[in-house]
Amino acid sequence: MTKMSGTARGQQIRRFLRENELRAWIAWRPDELLMMSGYLPYWGASLLIYFSEAEPVLFVPQLEPRDHIPGGLQVKEYPWGDLKCTDPYSILVSSVRDELAKAKVSREQVGMNPNSARAALPMQAAEHIPFPENFSNLFSGLAAKSSTAHQAGFFQLYLRKTAEEIQAIRLANRVANVGLQVFHEKLKPGISEVEIAAAVESAIQCQIGHDGIFHSRAWAMVQSGPNAADAGRFNRSTGRRLQNGDLVLIELGTCVNGYWSDLTRTAAVGHLKPEVEEILNVAADAQKAAINEVGPGVSADHIDAVARDSIAGRGFADFFTHLTGHHVGFRYHDPGFGIVPDEGAKLEPGMIITIEPGVYVRERGAGARIEDNVLVTESGHKILSRTDGRGEHDQH
Amino acid sequence: MTKMSGTARGQQIRRFLRENELRAWIAWRPDELLMMSGYLPYWGASLLIYFSEAEPVLFVPQLEPRDHIPGGLQVKEYPWGDLKCTDPYSILVSSVRDELAKAKVSREQVGMNPNSARAALPMQAAEHIPFPENFSNLFSGLAAKSSTAHQAGFFQLYLRKTAEEIQAIRLANRVANVGLQVFHEKLKPGISEVEIAAAVESAIQCQIGHDGIFHSRAWAMVQSGPNAADAGRFNRSTGRRLQNGDLVLIELGTCVNGYWSDLTRTAAVGHLKPEVEEILNVAADAQKAAINEVGPGVSADHIDAVARDSIAGRGFADFFTHLTGHHVGFRYHDPGFGIVPDEGAKLEPGMIITIEPGVYVRERGAGARIEDNVLVTESGHKILSRTDGRGEHDQH
Repeated sequence: MTKMSGTARGQQIRRFLRENELRAWIAWRPDELLMMSGYLPYWGASLLIYFSEAEPVLFVPQLEPRDHIPGGLQVKEYPWGDLKCTDPYSILVSSVRDELAKAKVSREQVGMNPNSARAALPMQAAEHIPFPENFSNLFSGLAAKSSTAHQAGFFQLYLRKTAEEIQAIRLANRVANVGLQVFHEKLKPGISEVEIAAAVESAIQCQIGHDGIFHSRAWAMVQSGPNAADAGRFNRSTGRRLQNGDLVLIELGTCVNGYWSDLTRTAAVGHLKPEVEEILNVAADAQKAAINEVGPGVSADHIDAVARDSIAGRGFADFFTHLTGHHVGFRYHDPGFGIVPDEGAKLEPGMIITIEPGVYVRERGAGARIEDNVLVTESGHKILSRTDGRGEHDQH
Repeated sequence: MTKMSGTARGQQIRRFLRENELRAWIAWRPDELLMMSGYLPYWGASLLIYFSEAEPVLFVPQLEPRDHIPGGLQVKEYPWGDLKCTDPYSILVSSVRDELAKAKVSREQVGMNPNSARAALPMQAAEHIPFPENFSNLFSGLAAKSSTAHQAGFFQLYLRKTAEEIQAIRLANRVANVGLQVFHEKLKPGISEVEIAAAVESAIQCQIGHDGIFHSRAWAMVQSGPNAADAGRFNRSTGRRLQNGDLVLIELGTCVNGYWSDLTRTAAVGHLKPEVEEILNVAADAQKAAINEVGPGVSADHIDAVARDSIAGRGFADFFTHLTGHHVGFRYHDPGFGIVPDEGAKLEPGMIITIEPGVYVRERGAGARIEDNVLVTESGHKILSRTDGRGEHDQH
C-alpha cells in the first residue's frame, strides 16, 4: 500500500472508482479536494487527479501557499497568477492530459464534476472559486463522465467519515463552542444582534495559530425576539438590541481547516413569559428525543418523525416547517439524504448529521431551534458539539 | 418610461439587449442580479427576467426576506424551501416559461449566463449559491444564448457605474475605512495578525443597522514582518505576533449591501530599518504616481507602466509581479480589462478601478502594497477610499 491511497478514505474512493469502471477522477471543487485528500485549497484554483491504481497528483497555482498541503501528495505547479502567462488553463489541461496518458487512462475511464454548484468555499472565502466560465468544457476531451452519471456513488463518498475526518470535524465543533461561549456571555439587554455575531466570529477566527489550526472562520447569525420568528426561513443579524424577555437564536457555521460544524443555540435574556418559554422547551425536547434515536440502522424518516411528532404532540405542528437534519462535515451542508419525512435511507457508523428541529411563532414574537452535530457510532451515537457531558460518551 | 427600465442602468441594459438582438436576459448570479436591479439575494436562489420592452420580473424563494428587495421590481415567489415540494426548480422553470410566452419572446431572443464561475456570494455568504448542478440545463429550452456568445457586451455592462451605484460603492469604502481605523489603532507589538483581522471584520460587521446598511461583511487578511513578503502571492492571517520594526499589510475586501470595496494598507510598527522603510516608500510612491494618471481616455497599460516604471526606477522591478489594478464594485474583482501591461483599453467616466502596486522582498523580510478604489470622472478621478482629503476633490 502506498501513502494516500492506503488510508480508509483512499479505500472508499478506489472502491467507488472500480465499481464505476473508472480509472481516474479529476477533482477541483474545494469540498471534493478536501474529501479526497484532506487538502483545503487557498485560491480554489487547484486540481487533483485521483487514480484507481496510482498515487494522486495535485496541481496548484504558483501563487498557492504550500505549508498546508498534506504530506503524501505529489504536487505540481501551473502558472496561474503569472502576469506573463495569458492562458494558464491551457497549460493545466495539457499537464493533466500528460498525466493521464502516462497512466494509460482513456477518456471513457475519467470522471469529473461539471460545475461548482453548491461547492464549499476555498480558504479565500470572499468569492466563488476563480475558475473561468468554460472551465469544465476545457476538460471535455479528457473526462467523459460527469458526476451526474455517477451521482449515486460519488456523493455517497461524502457520507461515511473516517476516523481522521471525525477528529477534524470534532475540532471544528470544539472551536465553534468557543464561539458559543462568547454568545452566552454576551447575552445582556442592550447589546445588538450584530455585536454578538461579530464577537462570536471574532473569537472563532482567533483560534488560528492554536492546535494546528491554520484556517478558522465563522458565519454567525443572531436573531432576537420577534426576529427569531423568521429563523425558520432565513438567518441574519440586524442592529436590533436585545431586551429582557427575548429568546435569542444563533445559527453558527464554522469552518476549521476546511471541516465544518453547523450549530444552533437558543437562549433567554432575563425572564421569559410562559408562552415564550414553552417554545424553547418544545424545540429542546424534540431535539433531545430525536438525538436519542440516532444509531446505526435507523432510518432518516424515523428520526424526523420523532422530532416532528414531539412538536406536534405539544400543538406546534404548523410551526416546524423545515427538515430535521442533514449530513455535515466537508461542507456546511453535505450532500446526501436529508433527515426528512419519507426518506427511508438508514444511518451507518461514521455518518455525521445535524439534528435541528425548530419552532417559530410570529404571534408570540419568538422562535427557537437547537442544533447539534451527531456522529453515528457502531453502537449508538456521540454528540460532537457538546462539551457539557451530554456528548462525551457513547449514547445508546 | 417605467420604473426600473428608465434608470441609467436600465438604459445601459436595454441598449445591450437591442444591440445583441435579445429581448430578455435571465439573470441568477448574485452579481448579475445586483448589477441589473440593485438587489442582493439572501439565499442566492433568486432569478430575474430582464425584458427589453417590459419591466423586469423577479422570482424569489418563499424563504427569501423581502425587506431589502428594491422597489419597482415585480416579485413572484416559488416554493424553494418548502419541505413538501420535492422539485421547486420545475415550478420555477415553468413560471419563467409562462412569463416569456406572455411577452411573446422566443428561445433565440433570450440570453443567460451558463454557470456560477467567479460569481459574487449572496448575503448568506458561507457557501456557493445553492442552485443544483444541472441548473442552467433546466433552462436550455428557454434561453438559447449564453453570456459566452455575448461576453464582450454582457460583461461590459459591469464597467461604467451609474451615479446611484457610485454612491453605494462609496458607502462600502466609507465602511471599509471604519475597519482600517481599527487596523491602525491595533498596531502594537504583541498583538497577533488574526486578532487584528478579527477586530477589523468585527467593526465592519457592526455597521449593520446604521445608514441603511442591512448587510456588511469583511474579509480582512493581515500579514506582518516576513509574512508580508508573501502578500503578492496570497493573503491570510496567522497567529504571528507583531514586533517592533515590522511592516504590517492588510488586504481588506468589504461588501456592503452587495457593493464592494477592495483596499490594502501597509503600516509600520515602531521604528523601521531603512531597507524596510524603503519598500514601503517605493510602493507608496508608485501608487501615488499611478493614481495621478487616472482619467478618461487614458489607457490601462499607461497607468500600469507608470506604476511599474516607478518601482523599476528604484531597482525593485522583480519584486512587483502582479497587476496594477482591476475593476471593482459589483464583485470583489469585477470582470473587464485589467490595469496590466499591453492592455490598450481606455478608461471612461463611471469606471471604478483599484490601483494596487506592491513590493515584496523576502530577503528583507518585508512587503508593502497600497490599494485604493479610484473613480474615473469626466475631468480626472476621485479616490473613493480616502477620507483624509486626498480623495475628496476631483483630481486632475
